[in-house]
Amino acid sequence: MNLHGKNLIAGELSATNAATITALNPATGETLPPLFHEASDAEIDQACRLAERDFEKYRQQPPERVAQFLDRIAEEILGLGDELLKRANAETALPEPRLIGERGRTVNQLKMFAALVRDGSWVDACIDRALPERKPMPRPDLRRILIPLGPVVVFGASNFPFAFSVAGGDTASALAAGNPVVVKAHPAHPGTSELVAHAIQAAAVATQMPAGVFSLIHGASHQVGLGLVRHPAIKAVSFTGSLKGGRALFDAAAARPEPIPVYAEMGSTNPVFILPGALKQNASVIAEGLLQSVTMGVGQFCTNPGLVFGLHDENFAAFTAKTAQLASGAAPGTMLYPAISERFNQGVQQARSLPGVRVAGQSSGAAKAGQAQAIVFTTDAKTFFKHPALSEELFGPSTLIVKCSSAGELERIAADMPGQLTATIHGTEEDLAQHQRLVSILQQKVGRLLFNGFPTGVEVCPAMHHGGPYPATTDAHFTSIGTAAIKRFARPICFQNFPDAALPRDLRNKNARNIWRLVDGQLSRDDL
Amino acid sequence: MNLHGKNLIAGELSATNAATITALNPATGETLPPLFHEASDAEIDQACRLAERDFEKYRQQPPERVAQFLDRIAEEILGLGDELLKRANAETALPEPRLIGERGRTVNQLKMFAALVRDGSWVDACIDRALPERKPMPRPDLRRILIPLGPVVVFGASNFPFAFSVAGGDTASALAAGNPVVVKAHPAHPGTSELVAHAIQAAAVATQMPAGVFSLIHGASHQVGLGLVRHPAIKAVSFTGSLKGGRALFDAAAARPEPIPVYAEMGSTNPVFILPGALKQNASVIAEGLLQSVTMGVGQFCTNPGLVFGLHDENFAAFTAKTAQLASGAAPGTMLYPAISERFNQGVQQARSLPGVRVAGQSSGAAKAGQAQAIVFTTDAKTFFKHPALSEELFGPSTLIVKCSSAGELERIAADMPGQLTATIHGTEEDLAQHQRLVSILQQKVGRLLFNGFPTGVEVCPAMHHGGPYPATTDAHFTSIGTAAIKRFARPICFQNFPDAALPRDLRNKNARNIWRLVDGQLSRDDL
Repeated sequence: MNLHGKNLIAGELSATNAATITALNPATGETLPPLFHEASDAEIDQACRLAERDFEKYRQQPPERVAQFLDRIAEEILGLGDELLKRANAETALPEPRLIGERGRTVNQLKMFAALVRDGSWVDACIDRALPERKPMPRPDLRRILIPLGPVVVFGASNFPFAFSVAGGDTASALAAGNPVVVKAHPAHPGTSELVAHAIQAAAVATQMPAGVFSLIHGASHQVGLGLVRHPAIKAVSFTGSLKGGRALFDAAAARPEPIPVYAEMGSTNPVFILPGALKQNASVIAEGLLQSVTMGVGQFCTNPGLVFGLHDENFAAFTAKTAQLASGAAPGTMLYPAISERFNQGVQQARSLPGVRVAGQSSGAAKAGQAQAIVFTTDAKTFFKHPALSEELFGPSTLIVKCSSAGELERIAADMPGQLTATIHGTEEDLAQHQRLVSILQQKVGRLLFNGFPTGVEVCPAMHHGGPYPATTDAHFTSIGTAAIKRFARPICFQNFPDAALPRDLRNKNARNIWRLVDGQLSRDDL
Repeated sequence: MNLHGKNLIAGELSATNAATITALNPATGETLPPLFHEASDAEIDQACRLAERDFEKYRQQPPERVAQFLDRIAEEILGLGDELLKRANAETALPEPRLIGERGRTVNQLKMFAALVRDGSWVDACIDRALPERKPMPRPDLRRILIPLGPVVVFGASNFPFAFSVAGGDTASALAAGNPVVVKAHPAHPGTSELVAHAIQAAAVATQMPAGVFSLIHGASHQVGLGLVRHPAIKAVSFTGSLKGGRALFDAAAARPEPIPVYAEMGSTNPVFILPGALKQNASVIAEGLLQSVTMGVGQFCTNPGLVFGLHDENFAAFTAKTAQLASGAAPGTMLYPAISERFNQGVQQARSLPGVRVAGQSSGAAKAGQAQAIVFTTDAKTFFKHPALSEELFGPSTLIVKCSSAGELERIAADMPGQLTATIHGTEEDLAQHQRLVSILQQKVGRLLFNGFPTGVEVCPAMHHGGPYPATTDAHFTSIGTAAIKRFARPICFQNFPDAALPRDLRNKNARNIWRLVDGQLSRDDL
């Protein structure tokens, strides 16, 4: 397929703006044709207006048709074959096996949401039947269901060119809920984005969806992102990226005449607390697991474990030494794009320069341009408390091991921590019992709490919660991974005393799809 | 009970500020002793800090104990007897039968949330068990549950001195979810607020809850409200009141270093669409129902039907005439406090002064100071489109009947409408079938859609949704009435590979409370 380098607006290619984005191969530094045209204000307006125009038509599609659309997107993505993998590899330096795995996850997410839509129970139908004889007042018939919010803007993430980009979990869940989607492609992989956009477009045509159901917008400037968030037709935004970027979108959305929700997942330091019993049994295995988690994907995961805390004893010292030694043996890796490796290297220099912070281990191989060396820092709790910068996320293959002197110090660290996507505890069951207070404090801080594992590798399933208190996300109620992600893009509506035939199908007396409904306070799949 | 006129901070009376609030009897204009001390910054800080201090202790209470606390609050409120009714009547001019009814609703809400907490299924437990043999990667054990957000600030509403004030639905749902609550009393009924606060306090002592679980703060200034919303210990805010007030709190919360959710229910015009078939059959009955709904509680409900639309024909003319005639017979009523009746009377003057707007009927009795006359305005769609002020809420016993010339005009009005708590359609089933497009548009605009009824009198039940798109509320995902209101104050957390004994009880293999859980994708009440 020839790449056009244009915006794709409701099925039409459009490039009216002179400003362009240049795709780069971060491994070689070479530019990758074509040039991509940044969207003009008029193109942004058109994409949003057409999404609004076709919202009603799209949301009225029967669930089976929406599911077919999602399944077809998955097929079309697979149909892009090696071309997609090659372009993504060239634009991100992510190796082919990782990209094949991520493509599989992306396809599975689309199919998972198709299955969720077919199953139907996600709409949380709730029915309280009329009680005409009730005193002093009769109760009316009340039936509540989730309906879509309206056009959604999805910001593609740099670190998941498939699974959190054009047809990633955000797009899949927004489409599954019945919302048209306008995607802002991440400027670090515009060609990959265009290929996937064409797959969505082909699926929309093949399944006869209204054209406005999907648009792809290119843009590297703040103007494009803010233009989308501020557009009056847009009813929700999802974003995965930096705290600075996510907060800017949140602020813009909150300042609109009609504020809209922004689901920004803005990363995390994912602290790991390693308790004495675990280290006594498994110091070396934990060190191996930790370093693998830290360096996986060149450390470019929101769930990368960037901080490690433990109580100073000989096992902790051995664990620290082992982790440092493993870091020395880890090869440098190419990061996603030049600015991300520059920021990482600046962060490393900053941490290095702090008195009391030591580099315990670092990749022994030299780093080429665009590459990052794995690095393990060590410090003590006193130094950690002194320098707030140490508790900020350093996106890349690094971790800071902090030596603490008491359980109280661990608890203070946990209590002072801002919100996190995850925290992890390594311990024995006795450790857990002895550190109940630490566990309680961590629960207040995180979206996911792990025991004897590592936070990278997020399972896509109903029980997953990939979210957490600010600044991990801007809305702690919602997850961006797993089936529950669909809830971000739907809201309840209640019908009072509506004739059965005029109700949405899932609220009628006959429960045609056999979905779970809360009827008069009891869960049931029965007809009424 | 002697009223103290002081703030109640975690069980201690406190009055360090010289600024005071004077309670007024709106029916007589006389002041009602004592003076109430506005909270100082230090008192606000103390209330919030003590809520934070006791959050962990409160959220660890077994559900049965929380339920006992809520039930006990209900008992203590009833135990206040006539004193509470008399003070509320003096402060609000709401008649005793209404207050008795509202007290009953408040008590029932507390008991409803107690029952919800005892039942336990509200925590949305979700379990995906480990698949250790899965290829290419094993699946870990993942278990998700809702936990409380942390200290909540509740702003008491003026128009429901019991049901949306100190121990109203917001407080009950926040406490039920496991959050300490700091209530900002509405300055129009500070004595009523103090009495109810003492009831909560007595219940907290009787059931041995930690002192910080509840505080009452007095304040009429913006400083007090904003001080509470900006306090770092506060994790969520609920508010019922004006658009201006709600938006100010929303803006302050969004601008915090750590933004927090504000659930502001800011009222609505609750448009009523009366279709030709209904008027042919029932013009007179609909007019009676409408006027009753408009004048109930002197029109001081968020769901008051302030706009009525219909197609111009002789039945519509008869309906309009009948409604106007009924308004003339409606007695003026005393509004909740002087400023609210002043605003109403100003709004009436403003509407009257617009060319093309006619007063079709108005209470024939003269209005005393603080009273409002029922009023029915009429106009045509052209005038309605011309004056945006006509589509804004006029809080009080008024409605504007708008004569339209075509179904297209009704649809355009619906499409231009901002978000609403409710919309209502009167029609036959044939009308509904003929106006499907109108019904579809209205679904996108409202939280509740009624057929052949009136929006006042909101049922408190699981299927209720009292919310809606902005500006009806600041968060369309949530309701402030019904059991689902508890979801505002809780967020998911996921436990990965935790030992059974260290999990929250509702996530353990043994389902001790027999709650509904989604296990490996299937709803179940079984043990694992």
